[in-house]
Amino acid sequence: MVKKVVTFGEVMLRLSTPGFQRFTQAVSLDVTYAGAEANVAVALRNFGIQAAHVTAFPSNDLGIAATQTLARFGLDTSFIRLSDHRMGVYFLENGAVQRAPKIIYDRFDSAFAHVGKGDFDWQTILKDAAWFHYTGITPAISQGAADACLEAVTVATKNGVKVSGDINYRRNLWQYGKSARDIMPGLIEKTHLVIAGESDLDNCAGITGNSWEDASAKAFQRFANIERIVRTNRESVSASHNRISASSISRKGTVHSKSYDITHIVDRVGTGDAFAAGLLYGDITGRNEKDALEFATASCVWKHTVPGDHNLASAEEIDTLVKGENVGKLLR
Amino acid sequence: MVKKVVTFGEVMLRLSTPGFQRFTQAVSLDVTYAGAEANVAVALRNFGIQAAHVTAFPSNDLGIAATQTLARFGLDTSFIRLSDHRMGVYFLENGAVQRAPKIIYDRFDSAFAHVGKGDFDWQTILKDAAWFHYTGITPAISQGAADACLEAVTVATKNGVKVSGDINYRRNLWQYGKSARDIMPGLIEKTHLVIAGESDLDNCAGITGNSWEDASAKAFQRFANIERIVRTNRESVSASHNRISASSISRKGTVHSKSYDITHIVDRVGTGDAFAAGLLYGDITGRNEKDALEFATASCVWKHTVPGDHNLASAEEIDTLVKGENVGKLLR
Amino acid sequence: MVKKVVTFGEVMLRLSTPGFQRFTQAVSLDVTYAGAEANVAVALRNFGIQAAHVTAFPSNDLGIAATQTLARFGLDTSFIRLSDHRMGVYFLENGAVQRAPKIIYDRFDSAFAHVGKGDFDWQTILKDAAWFHYTGITPAISQGAADACLEAVTVATKNGVKVSGDINYRRNLWQYGKSARDIMPGLIEKTHLVIAGESDLDNCAGITGNSWEDASAKAFQRFANIERIVRTNRESVSASHNRISASSISRKGTVHSKSYDITHIVDRVGTGDAFAAGLLYGDITGRNEKDALEFATASCVWKHTVPGDHNLASAEEIDTLVKGENVGKLLR
Amino acid sequence: MVKKVVTFGEVMLRLSTPGFQRFTQAVSLDVTYAGAEANVAVALRNFGIQAAHVTAFPSNDLGIAATQTLARFGLDTSFIRLSDHRMGVYFLENGAVQRAPKIIYDRFDSAFAHVGKGDFDWQTILKDAAWFHYTGITPAISQGAADACLEAVTVATKNGVKVSGDINYRRNLWQYGKSARDIMPGLIEKTHLVIAGESDLDNCAGITGNSWEDASAKAFQRFANIERIVRTNRESVSASHNRISASSISRKGTVHSKSYDITHIVDRVGTGDAFAAGLLYGDITGRNEKDALEFATASCVWKHTVPGDHNLASAEEIDTLVKGENVGKLLR
Amino acid sequence: MVKKVVTFGEVMLRLSTPGFQRFTQAVSLDVTYAGAEANVAVALRNFGIQAAHVTAFPSNDLGIAATQTLARFGLDTSFIRLSDHRMGVYFLENGAVQRAPKIIYDRFDSAFAHVGKGDFDWQTILKDAAWFHYTGITPAISQGAADACLEAVTVATKNGVKVSGDINYRRNLWQYGKSARDIMPGLIEKTHLVIAGESDLDNCAGITGNSWEDASAKAFQRFANIERIVRTNRESVSASHNRISASSISRKGTVHSKSYDITHIVDRVGTGDAFAAGLLYGDITGRNEKDALEFATASCVWKHTVPGDHNLASAEEIDTLVKGENVGKLLR
Amino acid sequence: MVKKVVTFGEVMLRLSTPGFQRFTQAVSLDVTYAGAEANVAVALRNFGIQAAHVTAFPSNDLGIAATQTLARFGLDTSFIRLSDHRMGVYFLENGAVQRAPKIIYDRFDSAFAHVGKGDFDWQTILKDAAWFHYTGITPAISQGAADACLEAVTVATKNGVKVSGDINYRRNLWQYGKSARDIMPGLIEKTHLVIAGESDLDNCAGITGNSWEDASAKAFQRFANIERIVRTNRESVSASHNRISASSISRKGTVHSKSYDITHIVDRVGTGDAFAAGLLYGDITGRNEKDALEFATASCVWKHTVPGDHNLASAEEIDTLVKGENVGKLLR
Repeated sequence: MVKKVVTFGEVMLRLSTPGFQRFTQAVSLDVTYAGAEANVAVALRNFGIQAAHVTAFPSNDLGIAATQTLARFGLDTSFIRLSDHRMGVYFLENGAVQRAPKIIYDRFDSAFAHVGKGDFDWQTILKDAAWFHYTGITPAISQGAADACLEAVTVATKNGVKVSGDINYRRNLWQYGKSARDIMPGLIEKTHLVIAGESDLDNCAGITGNSWEDASAKAFQRFANIERIVRTNRESVSASHNRISASSISRKGTVHSKSYDITHIVDRVGTGDAFAAGLLYGDITGRNEKDALEFATASCVWKHTVPGDHNLASAEEIDTLVKGENVGKLLR
Repeated sequence: MVKKVVTFGEVMLRLSTPGFQRFTQAVSLDVTYAGAEANVAVALRNFGIQAAHVTAFPSNDLGIAATQTLARFGLDTSFIRLSDHRMGVYFLENGAVQRAPKIIYDRFDSAFAHVGKGDFDWQTILKDAAWFHYTGITPAISQGAADACLEAVTVATKNGVKVSGDINYRRNLWQYGKSARDIMPGLIEKTHLVIAGESDLDNCAGITGNSWEDASAKAFQRFANIERIVRTNRESVSASHNRISASSISRKGTVHSKSYDITHIVDRVGTGDAFAAGLLYGDITGRNEKDALEFATASCVWKHTVPGDHNLASAEEIDTLVKGENVGKLLR
Repeated sequence: MVKKVVTFGEVMLRLSTPGFQRFTQAVSLDVTYAGAEANVAVALRNFGIQAAHVTAFPSNDLGIAATQTLARFGLDTSFIRLSDHRMGVYFLENGAVQRAPKIIYDRFDSAFAHVGKGDFDWQTILKDAAWFHYTGITPAISQGAADACLEAVTVATKNGVKVSGDINYRRNLWQYGKSARDIMPGLIEKTHLVIAGESDLDNCAGITGNSWEDASAKAFQRFANIERIVRTNRESVSASHNRISASSISRKGTVHSKSYDITHIVDRVGTGDAFAAGLLYGDITGRNEKDALEFATASCVWKHTVPGDHNLASAEEIDTLVKGENVGKLLR
Repeated sequence: MVKKVVTFGEVMLRLSTPGFQRFTQAVSLDVTYAGAEANVAVALRNFGIQAAHVTAFPSNDLGIAATQTLARFGLDTSFIRLSDHRMGVYFLENGAVQRAPKIIYDRFDSAFAHVGKGDFDWQTILKDAAWFHYTGITPAISQGAADACLEAVTVATKNGVKVSGDINYRRNLWQYGKSARDIMPGLIEKTHLVIAGESDLDNCAGITGNSWEDASAKAFQRFANIERIVRTNRESVSASHNRISASSISRKGTVHSKSYDITHIVDRVGTGDAFAAGLLYGDITGRNEKDALEFATASCVWKHTVPGDHNLASAEEIDTLVKGENVGKLLR
Repeated sequence: MVKKVVTFGEVMLRLSTPGFQRFTQAVSLDVTYAGAEANVAVALRNFGIQAAHVTAFPSNDLGIAATQTLARFGLDTSFIRLSDHRMGVYFLENGAVQRAPKIIYDRFDSAFAHVGKGDFDWQTILKDAAWFHYTGITPAISQGAADACLEAVTVATKNGVKVSGDINYRRNLWQYGKSARDIMPGLIEKTHLVIAGESDLDNCAGITGNSWEDASAKAFQRFANIERIVRTNRESVSASHNRISASSISRKGTVHSKSYDITHIVDRVGTGDAFAAGLLYGDITGRNEKDALEFATASCVWKHTVPGDHNLASAEEIDTLVKGENVGKLLR
Repeated sequence: MVKKVVTFGEVMLRLSTPGFQRFTQAVSLDVTYAGAEANVAVALRNFGIQAAHVTAFPSNDLGIAATQTLARFGLDTSFIRLSDHRMGVYFLENGAVQRAPKIIYDRFDSAFAHVGKGDFDWQTILKDAAWFHYTGITPAISQGAADACLEAVTVATKNGVKVSGDINYRRNLWQYGKSARDIMPGLIEKTHLVIAGESDLDNCAGITGNSWEDASAKAFQRFANIERIVRTNRESVSASHNRISASSISRKGTVHSKSYDITHIVDRVGTGDAFAAGLLYGDITGRNEKDALEFATASCVWKHTVPGDHNLASAEEIDTLVKGENVGKLLR
């Protein structure tokens, strides 16, 4: 039996303006519930992999709706914690051409910000897991969230569960008195798969270099557990048109993916999460580093064509894109 | 020149489920920006009275959208304070028949909760005002909001501006360490028009009696400035059908309005605010107590037929309803 | 073969606010194309009767859309005249309970207002027709429209085509220098079926009486061709709840229909047209006066439950309502 | 641990016209996936009871969407069978006042119609179940569906799982060569809780009597396993207004519920399923016959206020309705 | 008088996901009624050519809605056959960039699949027709549909009506026991205008060659009636961007059209039908082969910009595109 | 204090088809209220500049809605004149790729067409104004509108208020007996900033030249007040893709802006008005000719990405686009 993946992080109410409306025009907002780590779990579930998401919600109708959104995809929601605090919210305005997409976060003091060490039974949660996945967002939210994340990572490594960390640095978070460089190294040293660009390595661990490859080499030296460092390369032609490829470094060398022109972006959000999910899918299904990277890149590309945070794609659909046959032709 | 009305209180982002959807069904939420006191100002503006609303918003696109929503109706928005805090939010699920409408508040730590004494130049704001209007919600939000409200009321009475207070008691607010009975009497003693039911008099001032009339008599004794105590009488046949009348007590006696059957409620929220606006309109236009009460009741009734918090009605429309001629007949 | 019905009158672009929104709230308007006389033709077509509608449209995309709306129901649109003038428009705000529905007309100088005598080949148009139907609106629009209507009525009576006139009086029309009393008698004297309430008889022909029955008796005396005078009796409990019955007077006596409580009105507009269509359907299918009246009343009632101007009902559905069995029960 | 409920039956794509549109007006159709038995499972899940639904879907995106719709509510979907056949569809037109709601079924040859004996591992499925629930629809669809239902009922009774059957008779089904009277008695004799009106007892088992009570007495005589026969009493004032109460007969006597006026029906479909779910909830939580009947009736009533087939209500909400306090009052 | 065109084929209920939603996201589906051959008739009608469509519908509200959709455009719908079978359905998910559009057909056992020889009075239907048009879909649906198509083609050729066949091969159809090569040659030999690519000639008639030109030459040899063989050349850059040109071979030689870049596809479906309609329009209005091909190609291109199956364009609009002046400039 | 801008011109009800629908498909139309000159005022207000718009509306709900639309942005609406005439309307169909966007105007006999000399108190209106802005549309509507515009321009120049004129020539207007060459020179001679292409100079003043630069030189000779002549250079690749740059000529020489590729146009209307607003903003904030031109061009570009007529952008957003950093990158 293929083992499951466990993800941990905040899920927010996403409120996005319809079509190309600006915030000040909207008389209605589209609703979904999403967060970076849960997006990874949803994408994996759509690829056919079992997954559980661990988070905290308010014990009101918004918490129920968020749980149902995850359950709909077949995620295990039984480890979600309910509390009296509020639901985190993010407001999204889609962009177009020269106008960038824009997010307003309203996640302060959420139910998830109140989690802490001992709140989750990680031994039980991580049983039969192949991977535990976190991002740089979670430890930036609150000391409690950072503690819980470290606890999870520690239990995971003890129990032979591999750890994946998308250590994206978000400057506007990290408000609780600690910096990323205080917290992140403790997590990274227990992480096997690191998703990070050059600036992430600097912001999270103070590692700099002449290039991403150079900085990555230093990271391999400092953190013994790291097996792979991976990043996407995004060229932003405009808000409607991006170019995407990806690179993966292991201790053996570097591989690069194909490059894709995404000329008509439907939804930019969650594309990095689709990439992370693709990497884990590749690993779980035994693909080699190059093939896993190609699958992850195509997964990332596909997500740009789907509205909402979630990558709605089967593994077969992504594989077809990797093969590049008949791209975009009407399927009857 | 007819003088203006000044209102003070929080304006929130209102997010309501479309049609009769429950929270857990909604894939979009309808948007407006509203709050009890601003609703009074909007209704008055639609009746043709000048009005300014005083509040605080975050300095982001949501704050701009909220300001524009008030400005649209012609309110003076020049006294609105901008800050770095969040926008208060309320989620509304409409009800139907045996299923009650439901509100989830998410207003903690909002920009308005951070206002305080000295934040507003009440001397300037209240210049040329006929009335200042507040509700029992504002002093319940935070010590600062209570302080600012008391400051406004004090300046108003000093400057000959009449004060109107809809002292509705909301049990779920009052979280900052003071009770309504600590704060409200200081406001009520400077209030000329009090909108309050029996339980409000008890919760806000500890005044009880055998009846609303009896409790009101005691309130007149205790608070020398009160000229009128007014309430609506709502019979809730179902979420879709309410019966409404109103009563007004002055030191001379009691008058009652007609009763209305609202058999197909469109939007329940803001109906009390439409009532308050009707009372102020009656006063400003020199109507007697009975006529003002009838106007206010009809204003309250009308609001039940309009989606959103705001009473979209001209004074002529309300007067037509008071007269009761050709109610509901197609106007060509 | 059952003969066809010919109707003549303006068709406008109908722009209505969605749900219960007021005009000032609407960010979109629902679109259809409709007019009193065309509504009669559409209803008859849905009952299975052949019908042609005669009107004039601008030769632009709005004219095409209007024509297609009529053609969709199977109406013969081949006699529609195209011109360079504008499309008439009407704006509709639905009402609710104590708030009346409201119409703003913007039909001045429309393509239809520019029709005139000789513009239509009535000999061809009325060939094989059983009935020609007009309303009091058409002759009120312009001298040319009145002339064309009189021409049609004259050709009809000469050729043995019966004439039906819903002589509803609209005070806001009649702007071109003639009054209804100048024009309408010339039409009424060629009309066999007159739909008119007491005030219509007065406004259109100066006929008054102690009652509708009395005034009708005088109308029978004055206008030799009239065979029946019919009206609906509408009690407007509220904008959401009307009570409807109908009465029909012939030279032999009066019959009355059942009364219906329409407790949840969906769309008030076009209900009189559905009534007129029901009368013509009854006549064409050989029903007696009483049965035709019951069918017409049920047709009128049914229309209140359908959004838009058009009565979407089969004759079978109306007959089921007349029988009154299992009203409102789920049909599987 | 409270045991689970297992339900078995077809889930269809439900396509309903928005608002009060007729089929011929709709330019879009609202989508959900639902079926009588699954509706029972969903309602129970919302009441907090574990439930699994057993059915068959096509192995395409519609089958995935249907599965996700059930999974969203937390149902166990692991026993759903995938096949190459089509998804059953039903089209729904909401009614209003005198216009009845209308359903067009298009379920012939669906994936579910192709299920048969041996297709489901009922021993595993029914493990730890408290109740198995079926309706009269399932055995009417195909011989295979009837066989699978009988197999499930047989395994259930052998394993001590109680059986509930809503033996509603649908004349338009039963097209495969057998009549209800051929098939249903074999199911009824293994059923403990029978939901049936007078005509259902006649159509399904040929049992007639002077009254429902009389017929039920005969059913108790003939079928030894029946413990309770229950029905709702629905008075259809109009498509918008129904009156509902319910009655329950056991071998000890009859109890009746309160009666409710549902004056503004939102969605008529699935109300009987909400009733059945309420009965099972009452039994599982140990309520007596009268209390379970009151809960079931309130559950049925509540469903009329929610769009879609599914009863979105917590057990607390239903209990509040049973108590009848503050019905319809705004909850803040 | 310009003669009419007769088309024959299935019209389905088209249910498409709004915007860029995937099937599993949709909570509503957009509705139209369309089919390849009817699309040709609609496009021709919009170009100003008379047209009749022959098909079969269920005798329910869906059949009425489908008929009204065709009637709206002015098609002659009087030859449509009603029966008790179901409406064929197709579900469409729009694509974007790397994600292809996707169709799920659900047309088995439809009313159209039940048509057969003798069901239509082709002598009457084809009277005064200039062209009869069929596609390779119709004979693939059922033996009866193939028989009826052959009957129509036979009557057409006898009566001097030219025959046009878009012999597109759909592998997933042809389920009734015959192959395309069994059936299609009998139709092709009576066809004057053949729309076919290289693989269509092989699949339908077993004709192969070194190139489309070569295979076409063989087709001319084998089928004496063929006057022209035409195809579009589509390059699928992505689901959002296609490149289109077209080629036409007669016994005199080959002509090619201009090439168009369609960089922002709105709706891919029905573009081939718009091409076919353009060819017939060119022929009927006496254009030469090259001009007809340019008109057809521009018609195909235009359809990509219009939502739904139907090409909504006047002949003037297509001619403007052929001329290539001021493409895309705002028309005031 | 930065001085205000005053704009003068008609504001119409804009009714646009949703998405990419054609006029004949639309069952709803999106609503806003807009006009060329008011669009300039709105854009300026969003940039932080005070602005008043002067116009005339009907005294009905549409006039109220239009006023509220302007007030929402913070425009001074106190100089708007109410009358009994109708609201001007324009219908907009968005284009896509090879299909051009299309406007149908229905503005004849509007309230604005009835304004005239003496209707507005320009002395008061223009007090404290920095600029008065008009376009070539206003004097084309009616003699009265031309008179009022000339009156405003005259008062402005007398009072030291600078005048800006976007003298775009609209052939379909100018129906009241005067030509542009009769009227426009009188306005141009009092204008300091002229926005005009080559054909505008010819149509409005009969000035021709070998190039725009040459014609402009002649305009400088003839009209002594002109300080700058400015135009945008638009290359229409398709309805979805335009290329935009701009040029500005003063008596000292010519400057050119950067060129932008707008590859995914959201809304083409109002882009010229956004350009004009950018020029005025540049002037008011003291930018030099080149910087003002770059700001104006970026403002024009930005407008293409926003639905509706109004440029919703802050000055900061436009400045970021001018700088060209991180164009289109997600802002968190």
